[in-house]
Amino acid sequence: MSAHAILLGSCTDRPGIIAATAGMVHTHGGNIVDLQQHTDRELGVFFQRVEFEIDDFDLGRADMDGAFHPLRTGFDMDCSVHFDDEVPATALLVSKEQHCALDLLGRWRAGELAINPVAVISNHADLAEAVAWHGVAYHHLPVSPDTQLEQEAQLSAVLAALGVELVVLARYMRILSPGLVTAWPARIINIHHSFLPAFQGGRPYHQAHARGVKVIGVTAHYVTAELDEGPIIDQDVVRVSHRDEAADLRRKGRDLEVVVLARAVRAHLEHRVLVHGNRTIVFEG
Amino acid sequence: MSAHAILLGSCTDRPGIIAATAGMVHTHGGNIVDLQQHTDRELGVFFQRVEFEIDDFDLGRADMDGAFHPLRTGFDMDCSVHFDDEVPATALLVSKEQHCALDLLGRWRAGELAINPVAVISNHADLAEAVAWHGVAYHHLPVSPDTQLEQEAQLSAVLAALGVELVVLARYMRILSPGLVTAWPARIINIHHSFLPAFQGGRPYHQAHARGVKVIGVTAHYVTAELDEGPIIDQDVVRVSHRDEAADLRRKGRDLEVVVLARAVRAHLEHRVLVHGNRTIVFEG
Amino acid sequence: MSAHAILLGSCTDRPGIIAATAGMVHTHGGNIVDLQQHTDRELGVFFQRVEFEIDDFDLGRADMDGAFHPLRTGFDMDCSVHFDDEVPATALLVSKEQHCALDLLGRWRAGELAINPVAVISNHADLAEAVAWHGVAYHHLPVSPDTQLEQEAQLSAVLAALGVELVVLARYMRILSPGLVTAWPARIINIHHSFLPAFQGGRPYHQAHARGVKVIGVTAHYVTAELDEGPIIDQDVVRVSHRDEAADLRRKGRDLEVVVLARAVRAHLEHRVLVHGNRTIVFEG
Amino acid sequence: MSAHAILLGSCTDRPGIIAATAGMVHTHGGNIVDLQQHTDRELGVFFQRVEFEIDDFDLGRADMDGAFHPLRTGFDMDCSVHFDDEVPATALLVSKEQHCALDLLGRWRAGELAINPVAVISNHADLAEAVAWHGVAYHHLPVSPDTQLEQEAQLSAVLAALGVELVVLARYMRILSPGLVTAWPARIINIHHSFLPAFQGGRPYHQAHARGVKVIGVTAHYVTAELDEGPIIDQDVVRVSHRDEAADLRRKGRDLEVVVLARAVRAHLEHRVLVHGNRTIVFEG
Repeated sequence: MSAHAILLGSCTDRPGIIAATAGMVHTHGGNIVDLQQHTDRELGVFFQRVEFEIDDFDLGRADMDGAFHPLRTGFDMDCSVHFDDEVPATALLVSKEQHCALDLLGRWRAGELAINPVAVISNHADLAEAVAWHGVAYHHLPVSPDTQLEQEAQLSAVLAALGVELVVLARYMRILSPGLVTAWPARIINIHHSFLPAFQGGRPYHQAHARGVKVIGVTAHYVTAELDEGPIIDQDVVRVSHRDEAADLRRKGRDLEVVVLARAVRAHLEHRVLVHGNRTIVFEG
Repeated sequence: MSAHAILLGSCTDRPGIIAATAGMVHTHGGNIVDLQQHTDRELGVFFQRVEFEIDDFDLGRADMDGAFHPLRTGFDMDCSVHFDDEVPATALLVSKEQHCALDLLGRWRAGELAINPVAVISNHADLAEAVAWHGVAYHHLPVSPDTQLEQEAQLSAVLAALGVELVVLARYMRILSPGLVTAWPARIINIHHSFLPAFQGGRPYHQAHARGVKVIGVTAHYVTAELDEGPIIDQDVVRVSHRDEAADLRRKGRDLEVVVLARAVRAHLEHRVLVHGNRTIVFEG
Repeated sequence: MSAHAILLGSCTDRPGIIAATAGMVHTHGGNIVDLQQHTDRELGVFFQRVEFEIDDFDLGRADMDGAFHPLRTGFDMDCSVHFDDEVPATALLVSKEQHCALDLLGRWRAGELAINPVAVISNHADLAEAVAWHGVAYHHLPVSPDTQLEQEAQLSAVLAALGVELVVLARYMRILSPGLVTAWPARIINIHHSFLPAFQGGRPYHQAHARGVKVIGVTAHYVTAELDEGPIIDQDVVRVSHRDEAADLRRKGRDLEVVVLARAVRAHLEHRVLVHGNRTIVFEG
Repeated sequence: MSAHAILLGSCTDRPGIIAATAGMVHTHGGNIVDLQQHTDRELGVFFQRVEFEIDDFDLGRADMDGAFHPLRTGFDMDCSVHFDDEVPATALLVSKEQHCALDLLGRWRAGELAINPVAVISNHADLAEAVAWHGVAYHHLPVSPDTQLEQEAQLSAVLAALGVELVVLARYMRILSPGLVTAWPARIINIHHSFLPAFQGGRPYHQAHARGVKVIGVTAHYVTAELDEGPIIDQDVVRVSHRDEAADLRRKGRDLEVVVLARAVRAHLEHRVLVHGNRTIVFEG
């Protein structure tokens, strides 16, 4: 399998963008294997993801970004180039519930998900043994309401030391402070156990049970400074009935949480997610 | 096909309720064909729906309610008896969009749904011809913000004159006044085009599009004085993507609306829905 | 809304196809609003659908196909050009069950589906009145096992006289003869009431009930000479339980049939379906 | 939480069964917390599952089965009594793929699934380490086409020695011989990675890809001597598209396999599954 480059770009819509982009790739010797584009007609904004083989590209990786500079000058395009074999260092943040974190590590070990987990960080010690078994470093950073900022400073130090580029909140039950969140735009993925925007905040399964809904859901989204308001990457649902107590909703929801979080992380790592305002374009995998 | 009676009951949970109920049915010569019960353990409340053949029942229909009086005295049960061949007169309220109303009428004409539509009532004239073709009376009751109470008085008069026992809001785009709603507890079914409690109020598909959700839903519920807060009977969802504009959500949602509303109306007419507080028990069909 | 052209093409995969295609559209003054492509890596075949605005195209519609001739000579591409405001004449074939045919006509009248129904043809008279109400001509062509070929000759004559380009089997319960089918490659859409390839042939809901499945499905596919073996366009499913008798499966299935058939017809009419061997590429709507 | 007894029964349908059953439970001091019944009207067979608290039952567990003897004599009922705190010893059979087996063990360790895994048995050594970490004994029983009967004799010896009462084929890629299977009626659960009866036999994801289906599924069923023909306990599906190659179907299917197998095992362990002929009644959980 040869390496692929992925060009992501967005700009004001106008004629000729695809012709220019595809032409540049072809001229340099790249071979497009997947081109997906989307135009938001309401906003007049164009988005594209172009994946191409680079075996015969006439420039090295370091110069490839520059090859697409004419897109910036000609179309005022916001664009970037990525490589599918360069996987960003990723930290998983967890509290006590293990299912999401262990599921991601299990997919990684099985070779199913190309994630690069350099650390699992938790405010509790519970998962230390299970994470160690997977061969990933476990950082226990306890926190109390009084020590949140210090703990987040420790956290940031760990992330920096490890060169982390993606943070996954795999059922981390603390609300990160706005200062931390805004330093990581579109690079913190959270799994919220409700069908947002319904049941924001704490204990969503209890809220869902109290409201008597017949379907529950989960939401994977990028974290922003406004709680549970960030751009949604993926959602899914499962039917429930009057027989299901809050504990049953929690159990049924867990099966959704692992699947939806894994799908969202996969989409992010494959550079298929573009954020525009508070919404996402998620190209097909 | 012989007629069936349906006994609905709820009371504080305690031992012996099913034995007493099933014993009474059997002693009188009834044959249970379906018994469903549910205990809300949190609230300590028992609910049951008992369907039985009455060919050999030793009492006539008029006396059958009395046969279960011991459940009231012995268990303080709130109970009622219904017959599956006595279908309540039903009015459909619509505005301009036809899909839900015509779908219900189509199911009725095809013999698929045992509804008894005695009137379609609308604040617009648009559907008069289509409804007439189905052989149902059409009442055009125009309304403006200034005339709502007068129009609702006309509406109530029509409902009373026709002996209506169930009102279905098949995309009726006016908010009924609390006075009218409270006169019809658990007898007005609405289809709301969002996955409640998300996107209450007007233009939910536009709200959903603005929020960037990846799944949209619809909700059938009993109408109460609090807008979009009544007990939920059924919900369902469909996946959407960044490609879907608000008009696409509307189109995809319509397919859900007809199905979920029909399911909810069927459940109501089959006496499978019990309301407790703001939640429902919906026994299986 | 200005008109759009849609270029469909497939050829052996090689570098430069998208660049060439997008370049041609741009050079002629077209503005691409949607480009979707797919490469079947196993077969080494490239597929594309390119939708573009033609307001400023430098050639008229009659000459537009020729503008893309270099794709045929340069890439040996099998390609064709379509216009979104030229809707093919369509015939619906039905037997006695009304739901699929009336649903398509209802969507057409509501302006939701850009179909062009020039005839409903049936081996029974049952739906004549309902179809007439929709303003579409009804052709009653009775058939018996002995008269199938004569009836199909009548049918073909009607289709030819009306210039029909798409035939939709909206629950037509006869098996068309191979001679007729092969004359309409990828232009006859059938809705089969099972999750193909399970339960081919007759009475699939009874087969499903006898097997005790927990999910039933429906399949929209192009008809080929091999019964129920044609390329699948769309499928969907619904959960069932031991409580559901064959009649319940039929009822639940009907709700799927109308939705899946409408989705498949929409995809076909929007030129989003490409057939390759016995499979389809269905680009996103 | 006090212990519950579960009475399962089936017999020819006739009046009075529920009254008799509920009366017996009540007379002995049991308190019914859940009664579910089903009548197959086509076959005229009645099925019931009655769950009751036994704190005040006037007989000990050893005598409880006898308390319901009148159901056998009076209604010719096939019935049995189970206790929710007596969990049968269970063996998991696996080959090389880990996801189903490790998922079940993970649910068990998290306290989510009341399974009693006394052994994991495999024809390969691959999962030994992971299973050991979960604290369950691993039995490596290699097999070749020539040694199948000897290996199955070893297998049977292990099951007998451990008092195993339930066998779960958690992606065990060998076909068990009819002699072994018939010795374990309705006590071997398999997860088949297709939507049965479609794609029986080997490599179902490849079969599904070759057929070009738009939805794939998985099936949990009891194993019988006829391959892939046993009574279905649960099924579920996921949408796929032309973009998905066979490897993608396998990946998407895995997420279904773990969930559907866990649901089926839970239903079996909660005594909610009754088998009749080649179909199941699965009462609600």
